[in-house]
Amino acid sequence: MKNIFGNAVTLTLFGESHGAAIGAVLDGLAPGIEVDEEYIKGQLSLRRPQDALSTPRREQDEFSIVSGVYNGKTTGTPLCILIPNRDTKSADYGEIAIKCRPGHADYTGFVKYGGFNDPRGGGHFSGRITAAIVAAGAILLSALKARGITVATHIASIGSVCDRDFSDLLADMRELNGKAFAVLDSAAEEKMKAEILAAKAEGDSIGGTLETVVLGMPAGVGEPWFDTVEGLLSHAIFSIPAVKGIEFGKGFSLAGMRGSEANDPFIISDGKIATETNNAGGILGGITSGMPILFKTAIKPTPTISREQKTVDIKAEAETTLAAAGRHDPCIVHRARVVVDSVTALVLCDILTQKYGTDGFLK
Amino acid sequence: MKNIFGNAVTLTLFGESHGAAIGAVLDGLAPGIEVDEEYIKGQLSLRRPQDALSTPRREQDEFSIVSGVYNGKTTGTPLCILIPNRDTKSADYGEIAIKCRPGHADYTGFVKYGGFNDPRGGGHFSGRITAAIVAAGAILLSALKARGITVATHIASIGSVCDRDFSDLLADMRELNGKAFAVLDSAAEEKMKAEILAAKAEGDSIGGTLETVVLGMPAGVGEPWFDTVEGLLSHAIFSIPAVKGIEFGKGFSLAGMRGSEANDPFIISDGKIATETNNAGGILGGITSGMPILFKTAIKPTPTISREQKTVDIKAEAETTLAAAGRHDPCIVHRARVVVDSVTALVLCDILTQKYGTDGFLK
Amino acid sequence: MKNIFGNAVTLTLFGESHGAAIGAVLDGLAPGIEVDEEYIKGQLSLRRPQDALSTPRREQDEFSIVSGVYNGKTTGTPLCILIPNRDTKSADYGEIAIKCRPGHADYTGFVKYGGFNDPRGGGHFSGRITAAIVAAGAILLSALKARGITVATHIASIGSVCDRDFSDLLADMRELNGKAFAVLDSAAEEKMKAEILAAKAEGDSIGGTLETVVLGMPAGVGEPWFDTVEGLLSHAIFSIPAVKGIEFGKGFSLAGMRGSEANDPFIISDGKIATETNNAGGILGGITSGMPILFKTAIKPTPTISREQKTVDIKAEAETTLAAAGRHDPCIVHRARVVVDSVTALVLCDILTQKYGTDGFLK
Amino acid sequence: MKNIFGNAVTLTLFGESHGAAIGAVLDGLAPGIEVDEEYIKGQLSLRRPQDALSTPRREQDEFSIVSGVYNGKTTGTPLCILIPNRDTKSADYGEIAIKCRPGHADYTGFVKYGGFNDPRGGGHFSGRITAAIVAAGAILLSALKARGITVATHIASIGSVCDRDFSDLLADMRELNGKAFAVLDSAAEEKMKAEILAAKAEGDSIGGTLETVVLGMPAGVGEPWFDTVEGLLSHAIFSIPAVKGIEFGKGFSLAGMRGSEANDPFIISDGKIATETNNAGGILGGITSGMPILFKTAIKPTPTISREQKTVDIKAEAETTLAAAGRHDPCIVHRARVVVDSVTALVLCDILTQKYGTDGFLK
Repeated sequence: MKNIFGNAVTLTLFGESHGAAIGAVLDGLAPGIEVDEEYIKGQLSLRRPQDALSTPRREQDEFSIVSGVYNGKTTGTPLCILIPNRDTKSADYGEIAIKCRPGHADYTGFVKYGGFNDPRGGGHFSGRITAAIVAAGAILLSALKARGITVATHIASIGSVCDRDFSDLLADMRELNGKAFAVLDSAAEEKMKAEILAAKAEGDSIGGTLETVVLGMPAGVGEPWFDTVEGLLSHAIFSIPAVKGIEFGKGFSLAGMRGSEANDPFIISDGKIATETNNAGGILGGITSGMPILFKTAIKPTPTISREQKTVDIKAEAETTLAAAGRHDPCIVHRARVVVDSVTALVLCDILTQKYGTDGFLK
Repeated sequence: MKNIFGNAVTLTLFGESHGAAIGAVLDGLAPGIEVDEEYIKGQLSLRRPQDALSTPRREQDEFSIVSGVYNGKTTGTPLCILIPNRDTKSADYGEIAIKCRPGHADYTGFVKYGGFNDPRGGGHFSGRITAAIVAAGAILLSALKARGITVATHIASIGSVCDRDFSDLLADMRELNGKAFAVLDSAAEEKMKAEILAAKAEGDSIGGTLETVVLGMPAGVGEPWFDTVEGLLSHAIFSIPAVKGIEFGKGFSLAGMRGSEANDPFIISDGKIATETNNAGGILGGITSGMPILFKTAIKPTPTISREQKTVDIKAEAETTLAAAGRHDPCIVHRARVVVDSVTALVLCDILTQKYGTDGFLK
Repeated sequence: MKNIFGNAVTLTLFGESHGAAIGAVLDGLAPGIEVDEEYIKGQLSLRRPQDALSTPRREQDEFSIVSGVYNGKTTGTPLCILIPNRDTKSADYGEIAIKCRPGHADYTGFVKYGGFNDPRGGGHFSGRITAAIVAAGAILLSALKARGITVATHIASIGSVCDRDFSDLLADMRELNGKAFAVLDSAAEEKMKAEILAAKAEGDSIGGTLETVVLGMPAGVGEPWFDTVEGLLSHAIFSIPAVKGIEFGKGFSLAGMRGSEANDPFIISDGKIATETNNAGGILGGITSGMPILFKTAIKPTPTISREQKTVDIKAEAETTLAAAGRHDPCIVHRARVVVDSVTALVLCDILTQKYGTDGFLK
Repeated sequence: MKNIFGNAVTLTLFGESHGAAIGAVLDGLAPGIEVDEEYIKGQLSLRRPQDALSTPRREQDEFSIVSGVYNGKTTGTPLCILIPNRDTKSADYGEIAIKCRPGHADYTGFVKYGGFNDPRGGGHFSGRITAAIVAAGAILLSALKARGITVATHIASIGSVCDRDFSDLLADMRELNGKAFAVLDSAAEEKMKAEILAAKAEGDSIGGTLETVVLGMPAGVGEPWFDTVEGLLSHAIFSIPAVKGIEFGKGFSLAGMRGSEANDPFIISDGKIATETNNAGGILGGITSGMPILFKTAIKPTPTISREQKTVDIKAEAETTLAAAGRHDPCIVHRARVVVDSVTALVLCDILTQKYGTDGFLK
């Protein structure tokens, strides 16, 4: 289905970095969900480059909802969000031989589209497309909230600097959702920012990990084969540029454990079935257990760096070198966090709608 | 789409552990692909429990292809493989209160299906369903081979014991595909087997990781958003019971790297564009680069153990304990390896068919 | 999606006329629906050739449900129905040049599958595959009944002989669902049978139309664009071999009407909104209105006839003639009726599940 | 999939009649296809109301392609076409009780969306959405042309006035594609226009039929079950508002024929396999035969009429009457013709891409 994700609730993406606009069409969401434009703006601002930690480029994310909302609520018909591109007067790329930027999709995109794709600023591969995901994601997060489900992500690590683990989930989540740089431990925050600035000073970039938690998901959602909750979330999360790994619950650590250590014992808690630990990250047999969903995402360092790199000239098929001259992000981990929340919301709205129906989504 | 995976090439799964049969319907594969029943048998035998490392249960995997093959070749119409269940005379479960096995889907399945699902031997959640995946996967692997694409997986670790890294990919792959216990380093193999037997002796189980490599994939396959090669592979891989993490190329290690270290420089090699290193695991911007595809999968320890565990009685909603009496696997990592190869083949056949068409699949 | 239909509820078909078995996998249906094997047998018997009006071939439709049913009810997991083929010892087709039967898919199938498909008895194109649809359809019709929705079809015409129109829908439907030859007017029935036997006597065949009614569908189901109720029903109905036309409500007659005549006035009936007439066949803007759904299907005469016909030899690409020697149906309209009911049930279960969810299907 | 159609090539629709814009996202089409904005304009002008035969409303269909085109050619990434709505200052509908217009989706839409949908001017149900289909369709028709495939539709009838049948297909098609009122016989054209004006004079409306032909489709495209060419075309065609019937080849007439009359004899023509007649409309077993594809579509009279009609007040659930005051079309058959061509092109591009691949589409 290419640029479309979801079964019952779908998101269709379009746009290129230097085209007229990027955008998304969100379809299948229940009617009657509040659309709060201020909240969408707030989410977009969390994705936008903001200070010395990001590119000095000042992106405009003025969005307009051109369909699917009436009297401030979703209509149940397709909701199209449009984000015009500004300042896209690119130099004439026509005559310029293309140097494939290492770590970018310049080469793979060229092969895939036979050279017909728009190469300016990454074209359809540009991270800018995630702005459309975030705008749609804000509406999806509101829909989840209306069902009592909340999503939050913190920066678990930048380079070698780690944040503290979650302690009081509810309090931690509330704190994170208000923060521009979503770290729980303020000492770690300082060290992370220093790490980013150090990379920047060396003309380099740095990666990190994000940890996401979902509270309030009912038990019994997901499928045993193929459309497992892990499978669907990973499918969506790997769309986010630079993601190269994902693990649920204790993830890769489980591979080194014994079963007696890894299994989460079932208990009765407040009269309901729960598990004592949550190594499984809230998913058993591909299906939600009612415990918090937990997963961690690995994000590679931004591929654009100002240090000189070996590469090839795609037209000449000859070796050459490249040093990025322009403005670029030394780290995108903190900006990616709200994108992770957004695609998570997309998956959850989709599987909830499958179980409860368009009509049953809001109960 | 629930128990169906794929766009152009689809696999539909069905069956319960103690029902009449399990099976799969494979559709959309090009006509004219050789179907080698001996190869299917060989692949099934790699999944089957074989010695002291596995359950003493002796599963029968006699399969029959009931449609879609004519004169030894795929017809292009749906191919149904049926694997009858033997010895499925289960005790009467009707009156038995169900103790939720920790780490299993007993509880989540009960909630999802409202208690109507077949609970015997895990029912539709049973790892036995993977036999149908492996049988279909054998045909898909043959289809890939006919295009010059090969897949191989080795046991990268069991508990804390690690295999050596790939050195000569072609030679390593050939060696692995003939082995029942797919390890490259024979010293590591002995230690892994000892680790499994130690866990078994203690009434416990152990997890591990699998590393997969794909050679021969052309560049330019996959999609930039949603249907990235990473997204599709992870979606399919997480269907395999007990998988809790996946990473591509250097994966989580990339999160700790600088861009200058992580980026793979482009070079000209044998007159073609390639990369000097392959930290990206053969995928850039969600699209194959023509370099080997590399990914690692984390598998949790088998949840069934004979040691006593805390759990609940689902009918009484009361706490209780459980110690598995029956036969079970102290480790499934080595058995899961051929399942990983199979779902990998499914994803690759699907995206190749999208790019080249049903007619162009075999060129 | 090739041999798979549906979004929330899917049906996957497989099998060839002379292969080991045909069958279907039904997925996504709510758990807890009664599966009445006697009812399935009854529906299959309505499709089976029965007397002088059909082929003297005596098909066996012994089916087995190999998964997805437990304690007589659907489990919510994929339900596979298998119908073995008997007496399929075909002559060796290997050396026989193939004469394309006019009106059949011999030629188009040969081109599509590059000659790799199983040509024996029509292979995967065989009308026999509809037995699997009918078996699955019986379960879907039961699911609808559990929601208060009933489907019935009568033979509106055979050749130039017409049945009477519906008068008392409820009474008419009850009568039809018990009948092997589903005609309301017994005088018309005699004439239709005579028409069929006359065609048969002349070594020829005859077509007809079927009219279907659905009672009890709630208003508000379906989509305005693409997945209109008309669009989905027609998509499914055209799968039935020999169907060449479909119309909803007054259908083609509406093309000759004025708006003042065609529009159904809204009224209040028993305190609810209804329409005075039902020219729209219960669907407005692609969405159910709560009025009975009505549509008519055109079925061409069976293409196999014993009269000599001009055709070509596909191997020699030379002109030749053909006269069917074997047993064949002079008419399939009466046998097709239960197939129409079955695919109708598939579409309705699918769209109801989308609206109300898997959990809300049975309310 | 709601407002999305297609497997390999997809069209996503969005927009409401009185919202900011309507539009469509076209995805999966091969890169490198010429996008001729003048041709798109021309196609839109054929859909637009033009003279006394249509509503005096002067719609603006200024479109902009905001993504997916670079240097005048498709890039292979999603192509979004946006058509802003002008003059959409609607009266405040907030306080107005809604009278359900007979024959319209006001009532069914209200029930489906629980009253949250935008009711102004038909909202998402508005025929205006077809402008987006036509704009995207123009690109799809160009893509087909690049493969040697042409589509044309004529007005087969308006009310009781019929056009002549096709005689020389190639010449007839060329003639039709240049005409605003697509009739072959100029005498019939005059009578049809008179019929429309007569209906208009009486405050009424009139329906008709459209006949479509496709030349140049290769044999062997389509699927035997579910995704038959008839099934896919009908699915798409019924999306067009007011369509209530479709038939392929001789369609409903086949139901009254004998097999010896209905079957198309195979012959060798110009060294290739063809059929002597084309009663099947170019499709056998759901698959193209290489003969022209032929089908006829029934279109009901425009439901909006100025004559007084009985209806209900949806808020009061009380009976009332309604006479349309505004501007409306006495007939939409001639305007619908280009919409039929467009969705036909969508289906054909989709199934060709499945067979030949994105890479093989342009050979």
